[in-house]
Amino acid sequence: MTGQRGISEFELVARYFAPLARDFPGAYGLLDDVALILPAPGNELVVKTDAIVGGIDFPATTPADLIARKALRVNLSDLAAKGAVPRAYLLDLILPDTVDEAWISTFATGLANDQEQYRVHLIGGDMSATSGPVVVAVSAFGEVACGRVIRRGGARPDDVVFVTGTVGDAALGLSLLGGAPAGLEPASVAFLAARYRLPEPRVALGPHLQDVATAAIDVSDGLVADMRHICAVSQLSAVIEADRVPLSTSARQAIGDDGERLAAVLSGGDDYEILFTAPRSATNKIAELSHSSGIPISAIGRMRPVEGPPNVVVLDNCGQAITLAREGWTHFAREP
Amino acid sequence: MTGQRGISEFELVARYFAPLARDFPGAYGLLDDVALILPAPGNELVVKTDAIVGGIDFPATTPADLIARKALRVNLSDLAAKGAVPRAYLLDLILPDTVDEAWISTFATGLANDQEQYRVHLIGGDMSATSGPVVVAVSAFGEVACGRVIRRGGARPDDVVFVTGTVGDAALGLSLLGGAPAGLEPASVAFLAARYRLPEPRVALGPHLQDVATAAIDVSDGLVADMRHICAVSQLSAVIEADRVPLSTSARQAIGDDGERLAAVLSGGDDYEILFTAPRSATNKIAELSHSSGIPISAIGRMRPVEGPPNVVVLDNCGQAITLAREGWTHFAREP
Repeated sequence: MTGQRGISEFELVARYFAPLARDFPGAYGLLDDVALILPAPGNELVVKTDAIVGGIDFPATTPADLIARKALRVNLSDLAAKGAVPRAYLLDLILPDTVDEAWISTFATGLANDQEQYRVHLIGGDMSATSGPVVVAVSAFGEVACGRVIRRGGARPDDVVFVTGTVGDAALGLSLLGGAPAGLEPASVAFLAARYRLPEPRVALGPHLQDVATAAIDVSDGLVADMRHICAVSQLSAVIEADRVPLSTSARQAIGDDGERLAAVLSGGDDYEILFTAPRSATNKIAELSHSSGIPISAIGRMRPVEGPPNVVVLDNCGQAITLAREGWTHFAREP
Repeated sequence: MTGQRGISEFELVARYFAPLARDFPGAYGLLDDVALILPAPGNELVVKTDAIVGGIDFPATTPADLIARKALRVNLSDLAAKGAVPRAYLLDLILPDTVDEAWISTFATGLANDQEQYRVHLIGGDMSATSGPVVVAVSAFGEVACGRVIRRGGARPDDVVFVTGTVGDAALGLSLLGGAPAGLEPASVAFLAARYRLPEPRVALGPHLQDVATAAIDVSDGLVADMRHICAVSQLSAVIEADRVPLSTSARQAIGDDGERLAAVLSGGDDYEILFTAPRSATNKIAELSHSSGIPISAIGRMRPVEGPPNVVVLDNCGQAITLAREGWTHFAREP
């Protein structure tokens, strides 16, 4: 049976996906029904799954290679934030009939690119038909030394709150899909759109955070929403100083004087930076890590003992609390 | 953000899914971004992913608990066929707006039922919205002693071909969704439909096959198609004797004298029985396994050295080769 593509699932797997499994012996070249994986001695496996859906997590017109890379990267981002080194992934590819072989070829090229970049391997998967949009579900596997995974719940009072890279670019990029404000330079529009379309998980940095971070999460739901996740499990509150939140030049341009846009940046998701807490004594070591990895790391706030339920307060540069209309996206509400 | 359900993803996870992760410490109660899993000393992890899609792998009207259980079971079936003991799974749940909280509650009840039955635990997942049909992707984890996984490629010339349970029930059950032939008893219709809707993976038997099977696969694409997979990797041919293929009483009733229906049984998928090869010397041990597990196991053919490319020949009771119009379903062609 070949479906409307004139090529069977088995042939597609052999042609486009088996090469992606070539260098991982336990994947058996995708010629068996399962894959085998064993962490190195002293390590445990860190697993994560996340799916992206056409029309929800990416515009339906997104090129196939970018869809593939985003699906993989959002999972690698979680592994990185937990201090894990990525190793392998499983792929479920749910495709409407409108997807042709060229699309699949481009999709596989995107995966090949990122496999090279992040040193991960496809080890198994499944293809199915659908009457709906493209769905790509990835389950990613990483390794971490036993007991060294960085959790949400380890933050301590007076820990400093850090974030990598810049925040809000993806939310701004998403908002620009409907049209850019007058005066925003094309280069800025392109930069912000790229940050939304193709996140850069902090895979090179994550494992080094094991030595310093007390808690960590990747910024996927939004800076404040993800800070709240750390607070909830750590049973602490956090104070974020808005003017210390790192913004890209493009984001500053796009925001201008617009207070609502600034608020949107603090609550927007999809940045895939790492938000983490660490004791003040780790500040020098973190500066060194930033230097050696080439990834900016900014101190943006402080953890506080709870008075009442755990809370996140964002202060403006006068020390006044900023009220955010919404604190972040959930997967049921995210729409381009 | 709560979507049209009036309840956020986080609340849904806390209410319906976190209880399913309670007994697996590395799942952190679904309160972190990843889960940790480590096979017991001397074991390796066996991983498998498979997704099912509304309107393709199950009728859109299927009750949510049956969808959940089928999604889990088709994965457990692969683990069983490879000799692995299932331990845990990740879940991607892609849901249209028409799905309400009651649906999700029923879905989770189905998972809870099967977790109890198969001793597996939810350890992580993701929920997303879609404009299309329900998609459920599961990645399942099992354990097997290092080097003991049963592969597709280990069959040897003169090995006997065995299959568990009965074959063709699911294909007949699927064909009956459009209406049952006159004279077929309602109990038979119900039995065959149930076999299609809710497979019973041979989880209790699978790990014991390590001691006897040289190659194995679960029957999901169809008896002949899956036999062909073993042949292709083992570089052997197989001869199947059609009248030794085990049929349920209901299947015999449904087939009657209809040669086409018999052929459909041999090529139909979704039985989730285990098809395996073993040396003739293992016959007694296999009979004991069948007895102790309560699962029928039938010898249905023999492996042969290849003459030309690997092939599967099905013989009728006069020793004549039966030609099958189609040999099995691929995922792109399977439609209820």
